[in-house]
Amino acid sequence: MLDFDYQRRTRIHFGKDALSKLPGELASFGPTVLLVTGGSSVKKSGLYDRVKSALAKAGKKVFEVTGVKPNPRVECVREGVAICKKEKVDLVLGLGGGSAIDAAKGMAAGALYAGDVWDLYQYKAPCKEALPIGCILTLAATGTEMNGNSVVSNLATGEKLGLVTPSVLHPAFSILDPSNTLSVPPDHTAYGCVDIMVHVFEQYFSRVEETPLQDRMAESVLQTMVENARRLKANPKDYDARANVMWCGTIALNDLLGLGKSGDWATHGVEHELSAATDCAHGAGLAVLSPQWMSHVVAGGPGKFAQFAHRVWGVEEKDPLKAGREGIARTKAFFKEIGAPITLGEVGAKKEQIADMAKKSVRNGKIGNYQPLGEKDIAEILQASL
Amino acid sequence: MLDFDYQRRTRIHFGKDALSKLPGELASFGPTVLLVTGGSSVKKSGLYDRVKSALAKAGKKVFEVTGVKPNPRVECVREGVAICKKEKVDLVLGLGGGSAIDAAKGMAAGALYAGDVWDLYQYKAPCKEALPIGCILTLAATGTEMNGNSVVSNLATGEKLGLVTPSVLHPAFSILDPSNTLSVPPDHTAYGCVDIMVHVFEQYFSRVEETPLQDRMAESVLQTMVENARRLKANPKDYDARANVMWCGTIALNDLLGLGKSGDWATHGVEHELSAATDCAHGAGLAVLSPQWMSHVVAGGPGKFAQFAHRVWGVEEKDPLKAGREGIARTKAFFKEIGAPITLGEVGAKKEQIADMAKKSVRNGKIGNYQPLGEKDIAEILQASL
Repeated sequence: MLDFDYQRRTRIHFGKDALSKLPGELASFGPTVLLVTGGSSVKKSGLYDRVKSALAKAGKKVFEVTGVKPNPRVECVREGVAICKKEKVDLVLGLGGGSAIDAAKGMAAGALYAGDVWDLYQYKAPCKEALPIGCILTLAATGTEMNGNSVVSNLATGEKLGLVTPSVLHPAFSILDPSNTLSVPPDHTAYGCVDIMVHVFEQYFSRVEETPLQDRMAESVLQTMVENARRLKANPKDYDARANVMWCGTIALNDLLGLGKSGDWATHGVEHELSAATDCAHGAGLAVLSPQWMSHVVAGGPGKFAQFAHRVWGVEEKDPLKAGREGIARTKAFFKEIGAPITLGEVGAKKEQIADMAKKSVRNGKIGNYQPLGEKDIAEILQASL
Repeated sequence: MLDFDYQRRTRIHFGKDALSKLPGELASFGPTVLLVTGGSSVKKSGLYDRVKSALAKAGKKVFEVTGVKPNPRVECVREGVAICKKEKVDLVLGLGGGSAIDAAKGMAAGALYAGDVWDLYQYKAPCKEALPIGCILTLAATGTEMNGNSVVSNLATGEKLGLVTPSVLHPAFSILDPSNTLSVPPDHTAYGCVDIMVHVFEQYFSRVEETPLQDRMAESVLQTMVENARRLKANPKDYDARANVMWCGTIALNDLLGLGKSGDWATHGVEHELSAATDCAHGAGLAVLSPQWMSHVVAGGPGKFAQFAHRVWGVEEKDPLKAGREGIARTKAFFKEIGAPITLGEVGAKKEQIADMAKKSVRNGKIGNYQPLGEKDIAEILQASL
């Protein structure tokens, strides 16, 4: 196990009654709130009205950025930053899925930075401070509700970049009511489940030894996801399955599973290029790429893949490489079973885009740790995904 | 799953180099520090000198309470409270095992309370605030390094009481260097391992359904403990095993495993009476009582015990009650294997003390949730432990 530091500042309110904690949270912040929302689903469900009502009762002066798109755009973040600066916002409150929350985080960071907020995503300037962030989550997927990350796209430059902070972008509070995810349609439910599982993969597949608790906890999330994604495929209105998936999503990327290890985020790196090129949903892109990444690297380190196959999928094959390959095949079949895409064609990518995506993936050098990947490796992974 | 709230304020510094983070932490607090230590082991190891040197370099004015005993006494906590009040202490720094840290927490709480600190442990007054607490841990066991609990004994009244706060008594930082546990003698290593495992049991054995992730994470800790306690029995100087046990200890009682469930703390309740009566080590008392508690309640709810037997011990028996009983037998045999006591006689308790311990255990009514226990149940559990 490697040395590590760990702290999470976020207060989690989880369950059917979680929104009732909003007034108590709002009381801790100043009078001016920027509310950041995505599509129309929160309006249809009535959640938006309930949040607005709580804000009004708390006497808040509310500004809004609405219509944040999946793969949130830097232009939208800039719009929020301008409001924060002009109106002296005290709290940026994201309401929606990972996109709305990540956009809100970007606004909170940009508000206290003198230059263009895109600098922070490009790591041209360090992200040292941010306005307080609140989160009301409506999609189980990204884990943004309890981590310091924000991912934003810049269509002008064709970039999708992740700003990862140790703690600056931790939400002060996150309200996680699984009821708010009951209406997520089957495709996005599946993409969210894939996203959660791939977050676990990126931390699980590590060359660092002697991390048995972290490994088993990661396997715990994966086993729970397999069971509960299947339940949601059968019945999207299953509250308990939604609750289990939602809590898995938080644990999957609040960094707990990767402590003392070096993760491998190559699949996410390549997927960001795929999303930037096709605007596909992040989880959809991951479903295509993750099993192909596994197949590309398994021969160089089959032991961990065999453990994965044995413990998560109950594979009995003893030979590590054969067992590992069986685990990968089951993962791919599972993604397909729950309704996620498994080929590039399904997410709208074309063969001719492969060379450019591969090149951009390594713009800062080789990516990944389990096996560092160069441009040729990535082109091969993408080719195999066709 | 039940609704829950969760937040941990503690910053964890984990690993061989963790103590190097102390100066950075000290810089965040005012000039006056109360250092709280237990026995002589931290002096022998040189850790005490290193901490004192860091405090001196940071320009701190240091007061000390030394010689905190296992099952820390309220008189010692009062001594620290008096120093905190008189000297306007800014940080209470516990250095040692759970006893030194729990005493430090009591001092930090008492410092900001006008009455006698024992009131807080008796819940006669709410524990609303405390001085900042720092923790440098030298024994993997209680989990106090990342929770809001403190357990203190009052020999005058024969009470051992736990003050449980949602967040007031979270350490601001905890320094966890597994190297500092390498010299823990075999008996206390075993007691610590039992303590960690029983913390998991108390959260795992719950009647609340639909908590599959919490259950699996609990099983992850138990499996990791079984493997690594055995390694330490064979080689107490195994750094990796010490590290795995230390991190298990933190996860076992930072409340993560019990979220959305109702735990059962009956074994701890009875053990506090056993420790109060005999001054035995907490983990030693738990090793005696925990398998007997399991045997007492298994017939009333065998399903969870069967899951425990199947997943943690690899029991293949299908019948739930038979499987559950096999899991309990293996647990008891395991405690014996690693050198923990399994009878009351081994911890110095006598048959004649049973009636009094049973009576005191239910002074506030029945205890436990998996099966609420009255005085007669507890007398039976103690009788079976002879």
